[in-house]
Amino acid sequence: MRMAELSRTTGVPVPTIKYYLREGLLTPGEQAGRNQVYYDDRHVRRIKMVRALAEYGGLSIAVIRELLAYIDHPGRDPLRLLGEAQATVIPRYERRDAPEEERGRRRLAEVIAKRGWKNVGDHPSFDAAAGVIGVLEQLGRQDVIEALDDFAAAAELIAVTDLRVVGDARDVERAVQVVILGTVLGDALLAALRRLAQSHVAYELETGDRTL
Amino acid sequence: MRMAELSRTTGVPVPTIKYYLREGLLTPGEQAGRNQVYYDDRHVRRIKMVRALAEYGGLSIAVIRELLAYIDHPGRDPLRLLGEAQATVIPRYERRDAPEEERGRRRLAEVIAKRGWKNVGDHPSFDAAAGVIGVLEQLGRQDVIEALDDFAAAAELIAVTDLRVVGDARDVERAVQVVILGTVLGDALLAALRRLAQSHVAYELETGDRTL
Repeated sequence: MRMAELSRTTGVPVPTIKYYLREGLLTPGEQAGRNQVYYDDRHVRRIKMVRALAEYGGLSIAVIRELLAYIDHPGRDPLRLLGEAQATVIPRYERRDAPEEERGRRRLAEVIAKRGWKNVGDHPSFDAAAGVIGVLEQLGRQDVIEALDDFAAAAELIAVTDLRVVGDARDVERAVQVVILGTVLGDALLAALRRLAQSHVAYELETGDRTL
Repeated sequence: MRMAELSRTTGVPVPTIKYYLREGLLTPGEQAGRNQVYYDDRHVRRIKMVRALAEYGGLSIAVIRELLAYIDHPGRDPLRLLGEAQATVIPRYERRDAPEEERGRRRLAEVIAKRGWKNVGDHPSFDAAAGVIGVLEQLGRQDVIEALDDFAAAAELIAVTDLRVVGDARDVERAVQVVILGTVLGDALLAALRRLAQSHVAYELETGDRTL
């Protein structure tokens, strides 16, 4: 298809597609004759993905370029690759040596030990979670901290579903796509589902259909 | 305590505290003598909360001011108030009338009907979730969409814990704090726990301790 059709099919304006081409997010189309360039379904899929990551994931063009490199040039160890791809989209957390953060780390370590989670102590999300727990502790919100075990149990259910969807990690292009979309879009989806469920549970409590 | 001690206790620099005072996020201290102003524990708690919402929640001063107004001047209907307070911190979602979003809404409605969720059709998070599902559909990620029922089940478990922590909604100051912190910090905490659990599950799959 030509540029005009590519734009119609994807719903992305021509200048934006040209911008993606200049930024190396899209491979060039096939030159056919002097002023004819043809694009195919791979371009359609790629444009939709870039658009989704930029719009829904709020990712910068630089980060998207890095992610696409993982898809286009996958490494050898699939699980390691998936972790690296995910790391590009997880917000960086600055570890602080404040006493409440240290308490947060201890509390989180207890929760992890109770659930028997392995392979998580060095994970960048450990400090992120410990930091939030530390802040909750500093604000005196022991009530939220006491619910940690239940939150961790729910997180494990979600993770099992996540890994089932990832499926065979050796199918790297597919697996990286699922990991990235599952991280970026999945966080937004789960947050929205959590609020819908809260609204439902609150309604049932109000009508007496449920007690806690 | 005086300003210098207030700063030491909270770890927040004096100019930042003065900024909070000017912006109306803190009530003025008690004037005692010509150049003496005294602050108390309420100031300490409020400063820590503002700091947490700004730093961890990434909320603007304007949004924080709005939230504090809910705490300081609670309305009459507690559950309605909690919904309104939460709405100030949920990212706005622009509904689009694209065909894939319409399909996302239908798919989400099916999931909700299956779980028997009530009181959720008009919720602002409905369109947010439907939008994400629509994007996943457009990207051909049926695999993620098929996992929706499991994600919704996990979201309901989290919501039950959330409502248990909120407890008595008539204790408005406490309930609003829990809702706001549970929304802003809770999303970050759950996202981090999800990644730790993913790392654990991936490890067990690799070592053969678990099959899916």
